[in-house]
Parts: sequence; structure tokens; C-alpha cells
Amino acid sequence: MKAFMNEDFLLKTETAVRLYHDHGEKMPIIDYHCHINPMEIYEDRRYDSITQVWLGGDHYKWRAMRSCGVPEHYITGEASDEEKFQKWGETMPNLIGNPLYHWTHLELKRYFGIDEPLNGDNAMEIYKKCNEILRQPDMSVRGIIRKSNVKLICTTDDPVDDLKAHELLAADKTAPAVVLPAFRPDKAMRADKETFPAYVAQLESVVGYAIDTVADMRKALLDRIDYFEKHGCRVSDHALDYCFCVEASEEQLNDIFARAKAGKPITWEEQLAYHTDLLITVGKEYFKRDWVCQYHFGCLRNNSRKMFPKLGPDTGFDSMNDQPNAVGLAKLLGVLEEAGALGKTILYSLNPADNGIIGTIMGAFQTDSGIPGKIQQGSAWWFNDHKPGMEEQMISLMSLGAMGSFNGMLTDSRSFLSYTRHEYFRRILCNLFGQLVEDGEYPADMQTLGAMVENISYYNTLHYFRFDELLK
Amino acid sequence: MKAFMNEDFLLKTETAVRLYHDHGEKMPIIDYHCHINPMEIYEDRRYDSITQVWLGGDHYKWRAMRSCGVPEHYITGEASDEEKFQKWGETMPNLIGNPLYHWTHLELKRYFGIDEPLNGDNAMEIYKKCNEILRQPDMSVRGIIRKSNVKLICTTDDPVDDLKAHELLAADKTAPAVVLPAFRPDKAMRADKETFPAYVAQLESVVGYAIDTVADMRKALLDRIDYFEKHGCRVSDHALDYCFCVEASEEQLNDIFARAKAGKPITWEEQLAYHTDLLITVGKEYFKRDWVCQYHFGCLRNNSRKMFPKLGPDTGFDSMNDQPNAVGLAKLLGVLEEAGALGKTILYSLNPADNGIIGTIMGAFQTDSGIPGKIQQGSAWWFNDHKPGMEEQMISLMSLGAMGSFNGMLTDSRSFLSYTRHEYFRRILCNLFGQLVEDGEYPADMQTLGAMVENISYYNTLHYFRFDELLK
Amino acid sequence: MKAFMNEDFLLKTETAVRLYHDHGEKMPIIDYHCHINPMEIYEDRRYDSITQVWLGGDHYKWRAMRSCGVPEHYITGEASDEEKFQKWGETMPNLIGNPLYHWTHLELKRYFGIDEPLNGDNAMEIYKKCNEILRQPDMSVRGIIRKSNVKLICTTDDPVDDLKAHELLAADKTAPAVVLPAFRPDKAMRADKETFPAYVAQLESVVGYAIDTVADMRKALLDRIDYFEKHGCRVSDHALDYCFCVEASEEQLNDIFARAKAGKPITWEEQLAYHTDLLITVGKEYFKRDWVCQYHFGCLRNNSRKMFPKLGPDTGFDSMNDQPNAVGLAKLLGVLEEAGALGKTILYSLNPADNGIIGTIMGAFQTDSGIPGKIQQGSAWWFNDHKPGMEEQMISLMSLGAMGSFNGMLTDSRSFLSYTRHEYFRRILCNLFGQLVEDGEYPADMQTLGAMVENISYYNTLHYFRFDELLK
Repeated sequence: MKAFMNEDFLLKTETAVRLYHDHGEKMPIIDYHCHINPMEIYEDRRYDSITQVWLGGDHYKWRAMRSCGVPEHYITGEASDEEKFQKWGETMPNLIGNPLYHWTHLELKRYFGIDEPLNGDNAMEIYKKCNEILRQPDMSVRGIIRKSNVKLICTTDDPVDDLKAHELLAADKTAPAVVLPAFRPDKAMRADKETFPAYVAQLESVVGYAIDTVADMRKALLDRIDYFEKHGCRVSDHALDYCFCVEASEEQLNDIFARAKAGKPITWEEQLAYHTDLLITVGKEYFKRDWVCQYHFGCLRNNSRKMFPKLGPDTGFDSMNDQPNAVGLAKLLGVLEEAGALGKTILYSLNPADNGIIGTIMGAFQTDSGIPGKIQQGSAWWFNDHKPGMEEQMISLMSLGAMGSFNGMLTDSRSFLSYTRHEYFRRILCNLFGQLVEDGEYPADMQTLGAMVENISYYNTLHYFRFDELLK
Repeated sequence: MKAFMNEDFLLKTETAVRLYHDHGEKMPIIDYHCHINPMEIYEDRRYDSITQVWLGGDHYKWRAMRSCGVPEHYITGEASDEEKFQKWGETMPNLIGNPLYHWTHLELKRYFGIDEPLNGDNAMEIYKKCNEILRQPDMSVRGIIRKSNVKLICTTDDPVDDLKAHELLAADKTAPAVVLPAFRPDKAMRADKETFPAYVAQLESVVGYAIDTVADMRKALLDRIDYFEKHGCRVSDHALDYCFCVEASEEQLNDIFARAKAGKPITWEEQLAYHTDLLITVGKEYFKRDWVCQYHFGCLRNNSRKMFPKLGPDTGFDSMNDQPNAVGLAKLLGVLEEAGALGKTILYSLNPADNGIIGTIMGAFQTDSGIPGKIQQGSAWWFNDHKPGMEEQMISLMSLGAMGSFNGMLTDSRSFLSYTRHEYFRRILCNLFGQLVEDGEYPADMQTLGAMVENISYYNTLHYFRFDELLK
Repeated sequence: MKAFMNEDFLLKTETAVRLYHDHGEKMPIIDYHCHINPMEIYEDRRYDSITQVWLGGDHYKWRAMRSCGVPEHYITGEASDEEKFQKWGETMPNLIGNPLYHWTHLELKRYFGIDEPLNGDNAMEIYKKCNEILRQPDMSVRGIIRKSNVKLICTTDDPVDDLKAHELLAADKTAPAVVLPAFRPDKAMRADKETFPAYVAQLESVVGYAIDTVADMRKALLDRIDYFEKHGCRVSDHALDYCFCVEASEEQLNDIFARAKAGKPITWEEQLAYHTDLLITVGKEYFKRDWVCQYHFGCLRNNSRKMFPKLGPDTGFDSMNDQPNAVGLAKLLGVLEEAGALGKTILYSLNPADNGIIGTIMGAFQTDSGIPGKIQQGSAWWFNDHKPGMEEQMISLMSLGAMGSFNGMLTDSRSFLSYTRHEYFRRILCNLFGQLVEDGEYPADMQTLGAMVENISYYNTLHYFRFDELLK
């Protein structure tokens, strides 16, 4: 029996141990997709308590607590930091087999030097110890980034954002890492949402002209892409309930836009047509600028109509979706390719049943790019970001494509302590490779394997995004 | 190599062995969902032959025999009990990797003391030995229930049922277990079926008033819920081809109902609207009474139009369905939650591709109940009720939710010898936990683990259904 | 650690080793579904270089190279055989976990005696060695078939094909194996394709009469089935995007056909109705003749609109599809069964999420045939034809049906070196069985297990297709 989370955690073979400790472990981190607030880096935020860091905004943990019957008072409510942490400690042992169990203890170990499994009995003791350590000088946001060996971070930003924090960080020679924005124009593309008219008004005020037609909206988005590029952006992100590609005439699109801007209802089919047009518009621009385009799909958001008015989005009420994606995705990529404008693209589905769809569709659009893995499957996303989910994603990817081209991990996180998820991923990666070698399914060629681990952990991402221009 | 089905069957690690033998094995059984006939308990039915018990109504076995080319004559036809058992014996070795192989041998071992693998050569010998044992006094239905350590059973009953058997058993101080009804009003909700008018007439005669409108039907169902509650019921069950939530006006609903009652056709969309209305009606009532609501979906029934007229439903001609469920399920739960009436709910899909859908949607509706695991994923159902299927369900559940709150196993069976499926489940559960400990993924904290095994085997169900009020 | 691809490759237990070496390995091969050109057998084609054999038409390899960023020039373009093989060698190490890694090295080992892992450094050396060996007398197509112990091959042929090669081979007493045609009438059934009018004209010229109505088309297909049967055919094949069963009147069908023949557009629903009618027509005929009917579904073809005009179909631009199949498949089989005409049928989906759908629907249509496994799930197909995919398919099949009736492997290949895929399959099969025995889940009854391995490797297919009439 292996001790809980020892230095060879998740590494079942000698080959895995060597691959991780000699290669994976040593690589720096590029976190090319996350949801942290860049101003907290600039301002070098500090935390009063571990509850703030862990339970302040992490809806993964909130869901787990709710699943154990913990009242909302102790989750997003008025309870004290102590009380909330106590409830989190009591929840912990129930989470056997859940990634939160591993993430929590990896973070306790790496950032707080705590080896003890958290539970209801020792929660207050651990709470105090963590808070003490949080008071140490190197436990500010910048300190955490530095000790995590993070070289580059891409945040997620709305087109209307002024990117002030990125500007300040770019000018700050003591910044702990390169911090770049990512362009996520979902709000401009969801004409079916109640908030759309207000958003258009906001975008009008940012670009300084009226947006009365789809052509105006296209121009506004391209102008903001230009603004983002001037602030170092080279990656975008799109959230789709599922994949689609619905064509419509300019006249129809203008009619849809006019109604939506006026706050009048549009049909779902109309929404898809409008969305398609803008996806293709920005897709072509991304290609021109050699940006990377990310599509996140297979998600059903804000399912609880009771909690949405209280807590808003991203508070733990989302789920996987199961509508078909293949036809829509293949058509969308096909239209861009036919226009000579299909660029680097990363595909993520929240439903692991889509792994094969992604793995085979991306294989049909890799032609003649000169770019290894031009179309990528993103690392196991959100609800799949656990050991079985990552193994399933990597086994699918290996079986259907070329693992050597894989970009590997990103945190997708809202917390600065999540960088250990890269460690978690690399251990799982090395273990998969080690098992194949152990079983005689791949030669024990440690040089090739070690290079592949280093590429997937770091170099592939470095080159794919042209970050080597920034990280000398 | 481990001997076939020895005492450590399915237990691969020392931790698993200890968890099962020190904890799982010792727990009594609550079988909260099955299809046995309660009158057979009251009358303490006895069996003349093992063929009656095993092949009299078990369509799992019928399918397996058909898949091996056995003519229907030897399955549901006129062949003798000997002949049928002989064919079953010949089928057996082909079922490597099938749960029937394990269930059969577990039942032979536990109830008949037979260790020999059944096959065509020894079938007649085993047949005789089993029949002899079936003649022993303690091999009546009550005897089997007692020796299986079953404390409580919920049957599955139609609203028109008079629950006579349950009444008799409740008054019988020698009853081997608490036997409660479950409320399954599918027939009242399937207005698209040919049998609907006759069913409405039957329900009218049971409630004693005419059912001419949807309001009447709602009242009739609520009256029957009240009747069931008086007979100890606290759980319902609904079979859905897939999940949906279609709203309609009262006028539309009355028009649909009137046509259906008159034997005229209704559209599928109209059926869904009528069904939705009643699901919400009874859902609110379940909540009020703190009943548990079960939804079984993802099933396509009676696929063989040739065999249905001959054998009727539940005879081995059903399959998984693959229509999308996420949007419909999230909306149905959302409507109930918004009405402040979302109660304890257990979700089952026959399609294992839905594990992630269930695991993530249920996580979005656990808010503020004070009930650990208020919304549950049911144990791997029917076609998934085998080792890989149960592992897949539990790994999904652990990865996406809080395993500690899981209600665990039920037989869903038509046979009194199926209680060994609880043993089968508990071994698989203990083995999963044992593997996590062995691999250093969870601490070797035997007290916590043992308690979790006991909870999932028994106590969680005991408390979730408030059965502790009945089992002192 | 096990050496890479040693004699016990993929065999993890002693039982697996014995099952493979004493049983699986010794069985001849029946390759009942492939895409090789029968004239190349008759003419005993020879190859100038390994590039011709491996990279001349194998779109699996093309996709892998594209995924590694190799320009099309080195794949389907003008580059020399040396250059292309060099690029393939460089691609190889990236394919860890991909079946191409195993297939490539199995073929190098079995046909060329090369044990060294291929990579960019030794590619030219291996290229030369392979080409030398290809010059040996026994490395012609006939030699390869003989040394692979192949007894029977079914090719895939269009109704308009004159089957000249099959005729020549049937008359050739030195033919290395029985070579039979298979009937694949997709082009006659896809009235929605641009090429349909030209195809109808071609079929008219082959049958010698005008095809002006659906009745004419039915007659033409039945006539060609008769012609194929006279050339030894006893198996058909149908490619469906997804499963459907749409009924229409004769008048509607004639209208659809007339428009399609005239090159006018038809709707997708009309296409499905026309397709359904012909599937049922030929299905009944297959049943009458005791042919085997294969349905391949779940595939989205020719996704790249850029590459299709350049390279045509089957060049690496296909993907899995994810539209629902259960309702359509159950209805199609149900209609045939109701007509008393449901014959031997093999179901394949390209989407592994459909394993459970196939496994459960087929179980509902096995009644009273006297044929073990009358309805079969085909071996893991195309994108699933790798170790995890085959394991998943077999575990699903075992869990849901009777493994003993399984027909096992086929290459589905365009290359004469692919017969090692049968070895690959048999090793995985024996390993699965060995693991069940090792874990105490099936008795260590080597006689039963050995017979099952031999049946699944050879005898089941021999009997199912009545090939025993041909292979004395």
C-alpha cells in the first residue's frame, strides 16, 4: 500500500516516477486559460484567511458542500470564515474519489506544508495554521505565482474591458509573470439574453459609435480585437451551449439584431444565425492575426431559477449538456476552412461522451498547416477535470490522434492556489506513459518519453501560442 | 490467480477485504425498489423447482438464452422445467463477463451451497440438488427474506391497486420484513397508449367519481397518493422514455385529455404536455408529504412488435434510448424548485452515457435542503447492473459529487433470490475504496472508510427515506 | 517491465498467455469485411517500396501525419517515396497510445523481421530493409495472404461492378484464399447526392433496362443481388449517417425518385423515406437468401470541403457522428421482424457511446432464430479499432449479451499487411479472458475458455456465414 499522497502520488511504475521527477516536475507553468482577476496580481492581494482563498468564489467546493446537505448560510451566506471552514472540513471525508479531495490536500501540502488529511475534527487547527502562513510575506498573490513557477497567465476578458490591469502589469518590471488578456465576446453574441440591449449600449460607449446593424457589430468586435492585440492578447474564447452553424442573409441578420437591440424577442434559430455570423467574422480575424480560438461547448448554465437571482452566474448551478455537436462543429470548421481562414483552434466539451467527436473532427481539419496539432482538444474541462476524466481524455486523444502534439494543462480556475492542478495533470500524464512502457506497449526510450512529457507540460504551449517571443 | 468466486470475490486489496468483511457484509438490506409480488410474501410462496424461481419471469435470463440461439420453446414456451433448466445450463459458459454469470453462481452458493460452475454437463445434477433444497422449510419466500437479512422492501404498485397484500402484511406480526408499497402512476400519465381509456375507467371505479378533466385526474392521483400513504408508502416511481418539460394551458390539457379518454389520437408533443402537468402535480404532493420521487429514463420499451402481442411487456424486448435528456431534466427540476416543491429525488438513466448528465444536473439542485444527497443518482440500473457498469456509475458519482451521501443498492428484481445483488454491489464498492487507498489516493483511515461503507450499504437509505421511524 | 512488443505482447496473465499461444494464435483468418482490390490478388501485385504499401492509400496514417503538422506534399503530394517514409518515421514516436504505433511495429515484425522501433533517425535504414524484403518472391499479395493464414476474404463491391476479379479468382486453382464479393448498394440509395443521376444511368446500363420508378430500382437491386449471389456473395453492407426508419407511400417515393433522377433537389426527410424503402426491400431479399446484412452507422463523411474536391472520399476527412440512433434502429429492425424477414444482421457504430444502444437493441431481436448471435455487434470499428476501443466494445458486449456467440474480428482495411490486426484483436481478447480468470470472475476452465477463443477467432464466423460449405 502506498502512503496517501506521498512524493510518488499517482505514479504507479518506475518509468512514471522517473518521467515525472526528471521531466514533468521541472517544467515551468504556462496557464493559458483561467478566470483570475488580473488586478489582484497587480495589487498583490493578500488573504486574511484560507476561507477567503478557498471558499470565497470556488463554486466547485460550494456544490460539494450543498451535496452533503450543508445549508447555504455556511456556503455563500453570512456565516463567519471559521464556521464556513469548519463545514468544509466536515464535508471533506465524503469526497472520496472527488478531485476536490486531491486538490485540497495538494494545496495544503505545497503551499502550507500540511500533510494531515482535513476533516471535521482538525478543521479549526488547520484553519489557524493556514491563516498564519497566509500572513507570511511570500504568500501574497505575486508570491504564490512565483513559487508556483508560473511564467505566463492568460486571463479571460470581455471586449468592453479597458484592460487597465494588463497595462499596469505590462509596465511593471517586478510582475511575477507575463499576464495577457483573452478575448471572450460571448455577451456581444447572445442577442437572446435580456441583458443584450444594455450590453450593446456599453459596447457603443467603449467604441465610440452607434451599433445599429450587424455590420456595425462586426466592426466593433474587430476594433476591440485590435485593442486587445495591442495589449498582448493572442487567444480568444467562446462559450456555446452546443455546436451549430446556421446561415442567414444580411437582411435577416439585421432584422434579428434590430429586434434584439430593442429588447424584443428573437427565436432560438435566429439567435444561432446571428451567433454563427459573428463566430465566422471573428474566426477570420483570429486567423489573420494568428490568434488561437477556443470553443467551450456542451454546457447548460444557471439551471437553478431559484438561485440565479440570488447569486448570479458561476455559482455552482451549471451542468453538462447532451445535444448533438458533430454536424454543427464540422460545418463551422468547414466554413472557416473553405474561406481559407481556419486558424489554430482548441475544442473543449463539458460532456465526456464528446471526446470521440472532438478527436475525430479535429483530425479532419489539420491539413497543411505546418503546425503540429493546429486543431487541439483541450485538456479535460471543468466537471471532467479529475483523474478518471483526464485519463479518459488523454486515452481518447492518444487513440485518435497524435499525443506528441498535445498542449496539455490549463487551470481554468478562479483561485491562485490552483497551480497544483498542473502538477496533478503531469503526474497523471507520466503515469499513463509509464503504464504503456511497463506493459510493453511503447519502448522504454526515456529520451523520447522525457521530451514528450516536457513538450506536453510546457514547450508545445510555448510554441503553439508563440509565447517564446515573450519568454526569453 | 484467485479461485473462482472465493470469499474474497471481487476484493483485490487487503483494504477492500477488511472493508467488506468487517463492514459491508454485516449490514442488513433495505431493498427500496423492486418488482416482487407482495402477496407471495404474505402467502409465503414455495417453489417446486429452480426453473420456476430463475426462469419463470426473469427476462434477463431469457434474453441471454435467445442470444445463444435457444428456441423460444425452451424459454417461455411449453418445454418442461427440466428441459428449460438444461438449456440455461448450456447457455451459462457463454456468458463470460455477464452479470448473469456472477448472479447465478452467487445464488447457487449462498442459497443452495453449490460451488460448482453450472454448465450443460452438470445442469441436471444441479437442477435436482436445487429442487431438493427448495423443499427445505426455510426455503419459502419468507425464509429466503429472513436468511438474506432483509429488513424492509418497497414493491412497485399501480394507483388502482388496493394494496391488500400490504395491508395483510402490516397486520401480520410474523412478517419477515417491513413491506411497503411504491406509487407508480405511469398508466395514468400515458394518454398516448391504446390502453388509456380502459385505465381511466378503472381509476374512476377505484376513486368512485368520473374523471372528465385534467383537474379530475389530478384529484384522483392525489386521492390515491393519500390512500398509498395510509398504507405506508413514501416513495414513488416514474418511467420516462427520456426527460422533458413541456408546458400547456389548462384548456389545451383538457382538450388533450378528452380526446385521449375517447380513444382518439393525440400527438407526441401533446402527450408530453399532459405528462409534464401530472409529473408536476404529483411532484408537489410528494414534496409536501416528504416522499421520495424516482425518475427512470433512457429506456425504449417493447421493441419487438412480433413478440409483444405474444408475451406482453417486461419480457426481454427493451433497450437503452439515446435521446437527449439534459434540457428536459434541468427544466423539470427547475420548475419544481421554483415552485418551492422540489423534494428528495432519485435519477436513473438506462444509458450509461447519461451518468455525467445526472451527476452534474443533480449537483445544481441540492441547495439548502439540509438533506445530504437530496437529489441522488440511483445505483447502476438494469442493463448497467454489472461490475463495469456499477464501477462506471460510482466513479462518475465520486468524481462529480459527494460519494458519502450515496444511497447505494436496490435489486429492481422480480426474484426473491436476487438479494445477493446487494452483496455483489457491496463487494464492488469496497473494492473501489480499497483501490483508492492502495494507490495512495485516500488515507488508510479505516474508521472513516468503514463508516462510509456502512452508510452506503444501509444507513444512508435508512435515514433518507425516514425508515428509521419503522425499523427500531 | 515487459519488453516492447515481445511474444507475450498485451498478454498480462498466465491464462492469457496460454489462451493466445495454445488457441488464438493457431486459428486461420476469415476476413469477412475489407476494402482491398480483388484484382490485386488475382494479378498477384508486387510493391516497389514500403511507402506504396503503407502510405499509398492508408488514410489513418495520413491523418496522423497531418496531426503532426506534416505538409500535404509529403502525404498525398509529389514528394518521393523516400521523403514520405522519412516523414512517417518522424511522425511515429508522437503516436504513443495510437493503434498505428502497434500496427506499424507488428507489421514490421511479422512481415519484415524488424524489431527496432521506427523513428526519424532510422527511417531510411528501415525503408531500405523493407524494400529489399518486398523484392522476395513470397512478398507478393498472394504470398502475404498465404503466410498470414487467411482462408477467406470478402471484399466490398458496388452493384454495378461486374465482379470480373472474383470470377477469375474463383476459376483459379492457385488462388491463395476464397475471395467473395460483398454487396454495398449505398450509391443507389443516396438520391440526395449530386452523383445520383449518373449512377442511375450506370445501373440502367448494367441491368439493361430503364429505371424510372422505385419499383424499377427495387427490381434492379434484386437483379444485382442475384448476380452477386451467382458470384458467391452472401454478405451485404450499408453505410448510414445514423439510423432511421421513415415510411412513405409509393406515390411519394416515385415522386422523390423522379426528382432525384432528374437532378432536382429532394429534402433530407425524403431521402430518408427513399432510403428506408430500399433498405427494407433488400433486407427482405437478404433474409430469403440467408445473407448477412451489415449496417455501419454513426459516421460523418468528407467534412473538409477544401480537401474533398482535391482527394475525393476515404482520404482522412471523416469523423464520428452523434445523432440519436436508438429509435430509428429499433424501428427498422422491428419492421423487418414484423414482416418475418429479419435475417442475420451485424451492427457497427463509429461512436463508442452507441455500444450500449447496439448491445441492448440487438438483444431484443434475437428471438427464435436457432442461430447463436443472429444479431451481432461488429468488432470495434475504424476510429475505435484500438486497444481501449476493442476492450470497451467487448466489455459492453459481454456485459449486455452472450460473448460466446461473438463473430470477432475483421480488418476493414485497404492494405494487405493488415492481417496482423487479427493477431492484435486475439491478444486483447485472450487478455480480457485471462484477467477475468486471474481475478476469480470466471473459472479457470481452460477447455471451455480455449474453445471460446477459437470460436470467436474463427469458428463462429465460419458457421454464421455458412463458410464451412466453402472451406472443407
